[in-house]
Amino acid sequence: MNNPVTTLIRVPALAVLIALVIGITAPTASAQGTSGTLPGRDVPARTLPVPATVSPQMQKIIATPISPNWRTVPQSPDEWRASVATAAAAAVKNLPAMRDALKVKIEPMTIDGVKAFMLTPAVIPPQNRNRLLIHVHGGCFVSGPGESGTSEATMMAGFGGFKVLSVDYRMPPDHPFPAALDDVMTIWKAAQKMAPAKNMAVIGSSAGGGLTLSMVLKAKMDKLPLPAAIAPGTPMSDLTGAGDSFQTNALIDNVLISYGASCDVRAAMYANGRDLKDPLLSPVYGDMAGFPPTILNTGTRDLLLSNTVRVHRNLRRAGVIADLHVHEGQAHGGWYRDYTAPEAKETFEEIARFFDRHLGK
Amino acid sequence: MNNPVTTLIRVPALAVLIALVIGITAPTASAQGTSGTLPGRDVPARTLPVPATVSPQMQKIIATPISPNWRTVPQSPDEWRASVATAAAAAVKNLPAMRDALKVKIEPMTIDGVKAFMLTPAVIPPQNRNRLLIHVHGGCFVSGPGESGTSEATMMAGFGGFKVLSVDYRMPPDHPFPAALDDVMTIWKAAQKMAPAKNMAVIGSSAGGGLTLSMVLKAKMDKLPLPAAIAPGTPMSDLTGAGDSFQTNALIDNVLISYGASCDVRAAMYANGRDLKDPLLSPVYGDMAGFPPTILNTGTRDLLLSNTVRVHRNLRRAGVIADLHVHEGQAHGGWYRDYTAPEAKETFEEIARFFDRHLGK
Repeated sequence: MNNPVTTLIRVPALAVLIALVIGITAPTASAQGTSGTLPGRDVPARTLPVPATVSPQMQKIIATPISPNWRTVPQSPDEWRASVATAAAAAVKNLPAMRDALKVKIEPMTIDGVKAFMLTPAVIPPQNRNRLLIHVHGGCFVSGPGESGTSEATMMAGFGGFKVLSVDYRMPPDHPFPAALDDVMTIWKAAQKMAPAKNMAVIGSSAGGGLTLSMVLKAKMDKLPLPAAIAPGTPMSDLTGAGDSFQTNALIDNVLISYGASCDVRAAMYANGRDLKDPLLSPVYGDMAGFPPTILNTGTRDLLLSNTVRVHRNLRRAGVIADLHVHEGQAHGGWYRDYTAPEAKETFEEIARFFDRHLGK
Repeated sequence: MNNPVTTLIRVPALAVLIALVIGITAPTASAQGTSGTLPGRDVPARTLPVPATVSPQMQKIIATPISPNWRTVPQSPDEWRASVATAAAAAVKNLPAMRDALKVKIEPMTIDGVKAFMLTPAVIPPQNRNRLLIHVHGGCFVSGPGESGTSEATMMAGFGGFKVLSVDYRMPPDHPFPAALDDVMTIWKAAQKMAPAKNMAVIGSSAGGGLTLSMVLKAKMDKLPLPAAIAPGTPMSDLTGAGDSFQTNALIDNVLISYGASCDVRAAMYANGRDLKDPLLSPVYGDMAGFPPTILNTGTRDLLLSNTVRVHRNLRRAGVIADLHVHEGQAHGGWYRDYTAPEAKETFEEIARFFDRHLGK
């Protein structure tokens, strides 16, 4: 069996990505998904002001400058582990105050060998008492371990009034594909004993959005029951670099910044040499016929704007009920950066209403 | 009574816009709708390749270069009349072939003093026999007179299988606000004799999208029946320059190009000195409670991406059924530029399905 850590240095895609990250000067890292023959559009340098068409909290999030060190990524598995742990420790510090404010309780648990957290709001409205949401956290398939991955699940529980089971799936550098997906599937199978599938939905953003789509593809393949609805937010639905907003929103999105940056290096660690066009890695290439009703969120400055709307169109072409919400001025996942922003409450309440329409009771 | 032609030179907004158009070097013309205190985002110059994630026809539309003369606009009412007439004559030349291909017949008519065209498809499916759509054309409130304004209506009739009545409303420089809206309302009132309101929808893009929203606000004010559904495409919902994509998609959108360019000069001629925040001019500021189900279309490169998604959010906040569709790589109104593009058929069929769900028979 390959040791995934030593395997990493043999992955050409990763080497290319690291080269791009080190050497990049202009945000045109993507060689995928662009027409090679037609002339491109020259856009001059400019300064984009912060829009006043969003809340003061969101203005602050939008104004956050891009780190001058965004091209620097850890260079070894150990450096990755240290970097992920530092970020996780910082994220965890903010969670107790949010749980208090949203009146959400957290319980760690292990289900069929997979770690998870149950987020339970103080008040569960009657229609949600027999419902359960499964949450798949983001973090580019490498970040957000343990409690640090529960922020979005906490907001969903608090604003939506649902019990939310957040999967603490295994991640690279120690556990590349398909460990994360396997763990999500294990939890999905175990959850069938907690609630009927028709009363359950799956929610997740970024890598968690990609995994939410991939888990439905996998459940279809394995003839498992499907959730009654899903809410993939700004999904990493195409790891190949295709999608026009990888170009148009490069260096405008202050979270993902540019294709080939840290997030894609992490995604390549997860893919571990597997063809990035595999629908279980890049679900935009999957067959979405028979998918459950889907609510998608993205923002006008999101590097994954295109890959969210491409999923939306694929779902609609397959005849699936699919609602798209695009948030003014927001970069990647803006709506779950600050639970005090009205945009956070509004978005999770919108998701909750969608689930209420499509879930059994 | 003021002569609208001589009134024009007294309009400060127009003077400011013309100054901006002549002097502009960077696409930051908007003084509206941005935070004055928070730091903006510096984005370097770059060349955006044409995405391969769209059809070959759409790639060609996206690759169309921005005219080097885009800052030049007509300088007098006579120059405007000549410019509009030239563009209209060119547009009309392409229409017979499209009508043939889509099997749509055109009939000019005058209804209660307002000029209009009825577009009738060769085959009207049974569920659409007692339905009628009203179409309000685009052209920044100044362009698209006569038959030249019927292109979108022809696609809606042909791809959707509906009878479509396209309003040839009066326009500046001879007829500023509220002439266009008055003409739309006259047709709406007259249409009540052709079909019940519950069997009718209103469709229009760009200025026509703004007018579609304004006509619902006006019908609410005047206690008239409302249409059963509306389809404002990339609506000019905010003439003040607010909306983040006026900044982010400036010089990326090859149709509208930048706030303060030709389209906004035309809009200022229409506004004729009236406060641009008036909801009948900028319907994003209107009260959307009680609006009919609404389907919105825009594109990831659309200068009006923000002002489409802001309308979507306002509708949802008001509890209105509102579906948003954002099209990969498309600038302003990409889906109605070429009826042979699969994106055109797909979009009009999506609108038709939405109408089928919400219109009486």
